[in-house]
Amino acid sequence: MQYTLYDYLPSGNGYKVRLTAKYLNIPYRLVPVDITRGATRTPEFLAKNANGKIPLLEIPGRGFLAESHAIISFLAEGSDLLPGDAWQRANVWQWLCFEQYNLEPNVATVRFWVKILGKTAAELGERLTEKITKGYEALAVLERGLEDREFLVADRFTLADIALYAYTHVAPEGGMSLEAYPKIRAWMTRVAAQPRHAPIGTA
Amino acid sequence: MQYTLYDYLPSGNGYKVRLTAKYLNIPYRLVPVDITRGATRTPEFLAKNANGKIPLLEIPGRGFLAESHAIISFLAEGSDLLPGDAWQRANVWQWLCFEQYNLEPNVATVRFWVKILGKTAAELGERLTEKITKGYEALAVLERGLEDREFLVADRFTLADIALYAYTHVAPEGGMSLEAYPKIRAWMTRVAAQPRHAPIGTA
Repeated sequence: MQYTLYDYLPSGNGYKVRLTAKYLNIPYRLVPVDITRGATRTPEFLAKNANGKIPLLEIPGRGFLAESHAIISFLAEGSDLLPGDAWQRANVWQWLCFEQYNLEPNVATVRFWVKILGKTAAELGERLTEKITKGYEALAVLERGLEDREFLVADRFTLADIALYAYTHVAPEGGMSLEAYPKIRAWMTRVAAQPRHAPIGTA
Repeated sequence: MQYTLYDYLPSGNGYKVRLTAKYLNIPYRLVPVDITRGATRTPEFLAKNANGKIPLLEIPGRGFLAESHAIISFLAEGSDLLPGDAWQRANVWQWLCFEQYNLEPNVATVRFWVKILGKTAAELGERLTEKITKGYEALAVLERGLEDREFLVADRFTLADIALYAYTHVAPEGGMSLEAYPKIRAWMTRVAAQPRHAPIGTA
């Protein structure tokens, strides 16, 4: 039995799953899906995930699992990446939720518009300004969360670090600067120094 | 030892926590926080949650836990509301993530603008139209998820039902109609018929 991952390699959400699988030495078959060409909106794909999104994990004998944070939590159950202590685990979830609600919709969207779709600031106008403002607010909360801490939860590398790293480290690709966030920058270096780390965009 | 919940009673995110605590018979002390008057943006509140949001749970001897889905997962660990089976639990997470990313930012925001802040469609313009369109798309995915199913996961009432019910059942308060979603309406009736159910807005 082998997992199949439907993914788009430049995706940070997909990267969370690929990094988690790498850390845990979980093999999978990759099926590339080009989200910029509507490949998640075909009837075939929508039959797998009614929400029309990657990453999507196919688990033989079970079915399809969508949502990057659900997938990484599923893969990491029982491992060091998801603490056994209830309070620490709750703190991992807190960071995952924060990423989904405050960081990803802003920092990732800016990068998607600017880098992946190649849109200009003039084209995007106020929508871009709003996303950038909210993105910097989220980065400030992350900076604050890293005060006196090497990693986000439990003083060690967990899913929280994987999930927050995914789009934070490529924020500059959308034109957002990490200059004002020294703790984030030091933490990113620690994350990238983890064994079995791999850059975004690799299978 | 007693939990303290910082909450705003009309909030659907807070309602998720209050409903979960009710089902599990977990007592807590409620501290009302008026989000419409900036009460989550004071230095005192930001010291508790740097992200400046309710609901926020204070756990004596531990600290503060933010994010409704992290809080309900923490409270429900080991209970029937969060299945012990890894695949079922992953499916609960999938629905929680979907709610946070696709449903809440649209359906809840429309309700917040229209009902809580009392803004008109003319004032809100295109921003409202966009949120409504995306909100209906999310409701269509939920309708699809309820095909041939009484509850979202594991054929029984779980956190997934609580989380999705919170803002879906008050969508009409923002002017969104549930007319086109018969499976959602039947499911809402089943959710509201659960023992210890309580309406939104109650402590």
